Amino acid sequence: MGAVPYLALISALAALGLAGFFYTDVKKASPGNDRMVHLMTEIQGGARAFLRQEYTWVAVFVVVLAVLIAALIQIEAAFAYIIGAVLSALAGYVGMTVATMANARTTEAAKDGPAKALPVAFRGGAVMGFSVAGLALGGLMLVYIIFVLGLQVDDAFSVITAFGLGASSIALFSRVGGGIFTKAADVGADLVGKVEAGIPEDDPRNPATIADNVGDNVGDVAGMGADLFESYAGSIIAPVALTAFTFSLVAENDIADDRLALLFFPMFIAFIGMIASIIGSFLVRGGNSTDSQALSRALHMGTNVAMVLTVVGTLAGAFWLFGDGDSFENPLGLAIAVIGGLIVGWALGKTAEYYTSDHFGPVKQIAQQSETGPATTIIKGVSAGMISVAASVILLALGIGIAYWGGQWAVGDATGLGGDSLDTFGGLYGIAVAAIGMLATTGVVVSVDAYGPIADNAGGIAEMAELDPSVREVTDALDSLGNTTAAVAKGFAVGSAALTALALFKSFEFAVKEAARVEGKDLTFALDVGEVEVFLGLFIGAMLPFLFAALTMDAVGRAANKMIEEVRRQFREIPGLREGEAGVNPDSARCVAISTQASLREMIVPGALAIVVPLVIGFISINALGGFLAGALVSGFALAIFMANAGGAWDNAKKYIEAGNHGGKGSEPHKAAVVGDTVGDPFKDTSGPSMNILIKVMTIVSLVFASAFVASPWA
Amino acid sequence: MGAVPYLALISALAALGLAGFFYTDVKKASPGNDRMVHLMTEIQGGARAFLRQEYTWVAVFVVVLAVLIAALIQIEAAFAYIIGAVLSALAGYVGMTVATMANARTTEAAKDGPAKALPVAFRGGAVMGFSVAGLALGGLMLVYIIFVLGLQVDDAFSVITAFGLGASSIALFSRVGGGIFTKAADVGADLVGKVEAGIPEDDPRNPATIADNVGDNVGDVAGMGADLFESYAGSIIAPVALTAFTFSLVAENDIADDRLALLFFPMFIAFIGMIASIIGSFLVRGGNSTDSQALSRALHMGTNVAMVLTVVGTLAGAFWLFGDGDSFENPLGLAIAVIGGLIVGWALGKTAEYYTSDHFGPVKQIAQQSETGPATTIIKGVSAGMISVAASVILLALGIGIAYWGGQWAVGDATGLGGDSLDTFGGLYGIAVAAIGMLATTGVVVSVDAYGPIADNAGGIAEMAELDPSVREVTDALDSLGNTTAAVAKGFAVGSAALTALALFKSFEFAVKEAARVEGKDLTFALDVGEVEVFLGLFIGAMLPFLFAALTMDAVGRAANKMIEEVRRQFREIPGLREGEAGVNPDSARCVAISTQASLREMIVPGALAIVVPLVIGFISINALGGFLAGALVSGFALAIFMANAGGAWDNAKKYIEAGNHGGKGSEPHKAAVVGDTVGDPFKDTSGPSMNILIKVMTIVSLVFASAFVASPWA
Repeated sequence: MGAVPYLALISALAALGLAGFFYTDVKKASPGNDRMVHLMTEIQGGARAFLRQEYTWVAVFVVVLAVLIAALIQIEAAFAYIIGAVLSALAGYVGMTVATMANARTTEAAKDGPAKALPVAFRGGAVMGFSVAGLALGGLMLVYIIFVLGLQVDDAFSVITAFGLGASSIALFSRVGGGIFTKAADVGADLVGKVEAGIPEDDPRNPATIADNVGDNVGDVAGMGADLFESYAGSIIAPVALTAFTFSLVAENDIADDRLALLFFPMFIAFIGMIASIIGSFLVRGGNSTDSQALSRALHMGTNVAMVLTVVGTLAGAFWLFGDGDSFENPLGLAIAVIGGLIVGWALGKTAEYYTSDHFGPVKQIAQQSETGPATTIIKGVSAGMISVAASVILLALGIGIAYWGGQWAVGDATGLGGDSLDTFGGLYGIAVAAIGMLATTGVVVSVDAYGPIADNAGGIAEMAELDPSVREVTDALDSLGNTTAAVAKGFAVGSAALTALALFKSFEFAVKEAARVEGKDLTFALDVGEVEVFLGLFIGAMLPFLFAALTMDAVGRAANKMIEEVRRQFREIPGLREGEAGVNPDSARCVAISTQASLREMIVPGALAIVVPLVIGFISINALGGFLAGALVSGFALAIFMANAGGAWDNAKKYIEAGNHGGKGSEPHKAAVVGDTVGDPFKDTSGPSMNILIKVMTIVSLVFASAFVASPWA
Repeated sequence: MGAVPYLALISALAALGLAGFFYTDVKKASPGNDRMVHLMTEIQGGARAFLRQEYTWVAVFVVVLAVLIAALIQIEAAFAYIIGAVLSALAGYVGMTVATMANARTTEAAKDGPAKALPVAFRGGAVMGFSVAGLALGGLMLVYIIFVLGLQVDDAFSVITAFGLGASSIALFSRVGGGIFTKAADVGADLVGKVEAGIPEDDPRNPATIADNVGDNVGDVAGMGADLFESYAGSIIAPVALTAFTFSLVAENDIADDRLALLFFPMFIAFIGMIASIIGSFLVRGGNSTDSQALSRALHMGTNVAMVLTVVGTLAGAFWLFGDGDSFENPLGLAIAVIGGLIVGWALGKTAEYYTSDHFGPVKQIAQQSETGPATTIIKGVSAGMISVAASVILLALGIGIAYWGGQWAVGDATGLGGDSLDTFGGLYGIAVAAIGMLATTGVVVSVDAYGPIADNAGGIAEMAELDPSVREVTDALDSLGNTTAAVAKGFAVGSAALTALALFKSFEFAVKEAARVEGKDLTFALDVGEVEVFLGLFIGAMLPFLFAALTMDAVGRAANKMIEEVRRQFREIPGLREGEAGVNPDSARCVAISTQASLREMIVPGALAIVVPLVIGFISINALGGFLAGALVSGFALAIFMANAGGAWDNAKKYIEAGNHGGKGSEPHKAAVVGDTVGDPFKDTSGPSMNILIKVMTIVSLVFASAFVASPWA
């Protein structure tokens, strides 16, 4: 059994090897003519410049927090924190570099049809996918092996959670900063280009087009990658931390086998999921068919096979780890928790698809409402988004219920575990591992997710390089393929965020109790919502996601305004630009620089807020902090679902009309739908996705600093 | 001290007498020419028909719930429930009848200038104000005197809370049904009349104009009145119930003086507030000045004087009731709680004003954003509304903190009280009485609130009766006067709702414990948010306000569509209507009937949901119900503030542009602002205001049925 961490580490190294292999594979492909290479280089340069500057700003923040951790917790935790942050940043940088290499190559391959272009785009995304998964799992296992097994430091499991906090810090700023960049550029490009100047999307005359493409990479590739790095690491950390803090585990050599099995089970699922992802990634091949259904099957084959293999492996793992003693009578219960989590995550994704795809009622109704103008379009989108909250919460509650029951069944009567928290531990452990089921196949899921923006960029390059329209058609077809999987991935991301946050929240409770025991403090720690401190925390916690959403939305608005001014200035001051005279080029680099500066400046306040507020509340009152985290979790989840689905629904209602319904492009309903789409942009790409990280980063920062809160003189 | 309930009853009777006096006073005034009388009669008839049908539907519901209460709780509670419901309905009916008498009379008086018209409109509203306050306080005191003092029934305090549930039931359906009616009519009238047919607002040719005016009365008069009846009664019930359930009080003759003082203090504040309101209402006089500032002073004089008197009376009452023994060392603490509540309520109102008035930044910024179209207008409104949530929650948290501290200081070390919950009781009692401070002057506050729609209707009648434009100018001036007070009243309503719900929530906890003791059940009742049941409840509770908002918004949309079809049909089928030929009249009654039917049908699902969901959850798990109520409270408060302020801000941004800014009426920014205003209509007038009642009705239904939940076999 002791081999599990090493197996997980080896699978992570294999994932990194695979990323290297795909990198060379992508690099071999031709990037096309000079114009295409030029565009690719501009996009890549802009994206890299953004990331470098973002990381510089974030580094200051990471150093400050590392010093705080070293001073208040322990120096080893500060190291692990920095390792988590650096690896997440590295995954983002490498993945995005390759994604920006793969775009022009996909365009070039698209000249020979979708079957040739699909593998290029997928493998470009897969470098991101396997870098994220490999660095997250590998880093986490290294930290575990070094600090828990090797050095056996005091309070070793704080070190593990600090690694998670490092990943969360990067994810928070990447999601917020990238989300602001991508929407500011998008809105700026559309508003001046399409609306004012009347030129098509991705037109080379538009100075903001390159920035828009850069935005896709920093938002949808790097931001999403950092997000899933954090989610994936967090989902493994949560059950490990829960086990460690419940049973006051200190270092591995003291731990009985029964408890060790609980620590190793999540790592084992991660190992199985990684192997399954690697196998799955080789099944994505173009084949010879150009039929869109066949291509879609090819793309999704990898994910589906990986998931089936993970389920089988999880079942085997549960019986292997928990089936050999008397302690756990029903190992099947834990497999049920994991598989239940997987199914609920899938159902959450399908719910999101139902509310945001034009095949179903909600989007059709929004399109219908656009007949009576933008106001009714907005109202219908808001109400559809809010109803999707109800459906998602009910599903999630079901998932929590199943996972709790499964965990309780498996662990609840385990005799060898001991500890007075045993009566609910099993259920909570079930909830924690349910999240891993959703994320075990992160490698291949992120590959498909990153594939989307690569195909999108490839289309942009085809347009800007003025290639034959047939190339654009191929890239558009590729682009639309990724949508289904993306919806499921979103469901996994948001579902696992809630489960992980819940498990981390519970770990926080145990960590506080443990710290109080160690400090010898007689702390009244009760999270009864009837207590006024807890209730005040709950109130403030439920408010924070609203504030965070408002700040990020306003940030997009301000950054977009700067972009709009710059684009207008270029059209005004560069002679011949608007008319498209030969040899007249826009100053794209300046637009990228402006978007970079604006989005980075705007990222500071909401980002800092997410970390500072729980720290301040924690030092004032731990009970209030407990209420605060619970309030932020439930209201943040609701807002995340509302904003993501309302935004997605408006987007697709517009596309549905553009496909020729309700008067088609240029009609009054279309104009109304465009308003909905524009409102939805910051909803679905900036504020909404940031919520997942917000609720987790606040929980994990509280968990890491739990002992400092308890040790503070006024606790 | 035993005189307090009788004093309160007498003050309530005096309020009813005053309502009668104002009624005859209004009735004496001339309603103007035949055309005006005709319009008034049509509006009155439509509004009455709506209320009668609404009450018929609600009666079915009330009977079902009364039977449930009689079967599961006790027959006396069912009686009190019905009394609460009937009195609330009566107050709404009487108040609305007089309001619809006062509109034409205000128009007629406006011919002689604002100084003459102001008292007519105010006294018309005051019939509503004092009917609401008199019937609520009088009914509550009668129930107290009959069931607690007289019959001394078992579990007498459940009877008191059942009265509150009766009021809540009517408020719920009135707010939702009235809110749907008023917006459906408004949107229908505007969309076909102003946009499609190009005729001005309130034009007599528009078939929906009468329905629009009826809507003002059923939504802003009857709906608002039922809401404040419920809030006012609830704020008195909360501290009484909290005291009774904490100390397991059964009937009054067993109760020690110290505890009796706690029961009587809220009644005493209500008594003082009522007397102060009566005095204040006589200070609203037109005077001879027509200067708008002088008129505004005249209108607000009543409220301001009433509040100052209430503060003085509260101080005196605290020392009288709590100052004569050793039990309470710091009676001042309770006065601080009440006055703190008053100040925070005022500050909440001012915050709402800041975010929704065109004198301040947010509305100006929304107007500014309308330069770039409807999308940016919407985004800015959403973010402004969300930021106002942060400001309001921080204020409310401050208020809760002050009230808790004050109550704890006054009661915390009271030696004569006994009971093991004493260590936090004082603070919670402080929170409960803080709500009364805000609502003690309900009589005069509702008078001013109901004054608004009367002045609004008066303007409509002036337009439809084609009077001299100078009359409309006077009524418009009167209309705008009420806005400041309305903002403050809204702050009181939402602030008191949160405080009352919190106190009722705590009473629910004590009621469950008491019921478990009586039943002899060893119930594990813990509202620890870390427990999975509580957490699931919290999740579902936080979701419900989103679902409720979505359902009510969709309801408005569907009802408005029916109205739009009807108005279009009339313009199409009635020859000469659009052209305004003499003698051609629209079929207004049919529009009213359509809006009535549609809104009543749409009211059922969200209304029933608010009562059924907590009952279902309560019978499954009381712990989950505890979490559910807490989640619904915090997320409902946030959504209520968000929707009310975003809606108000859009409304005033449009008006700001219409006043000549950013291009004025008819410009592109104006069109964008109209989109914002239309989106905001259901936000601020339907979904937003319903939230206050939603969170209270769910808490009070849980409180009333607490013993049934405990007695159920699977508890």
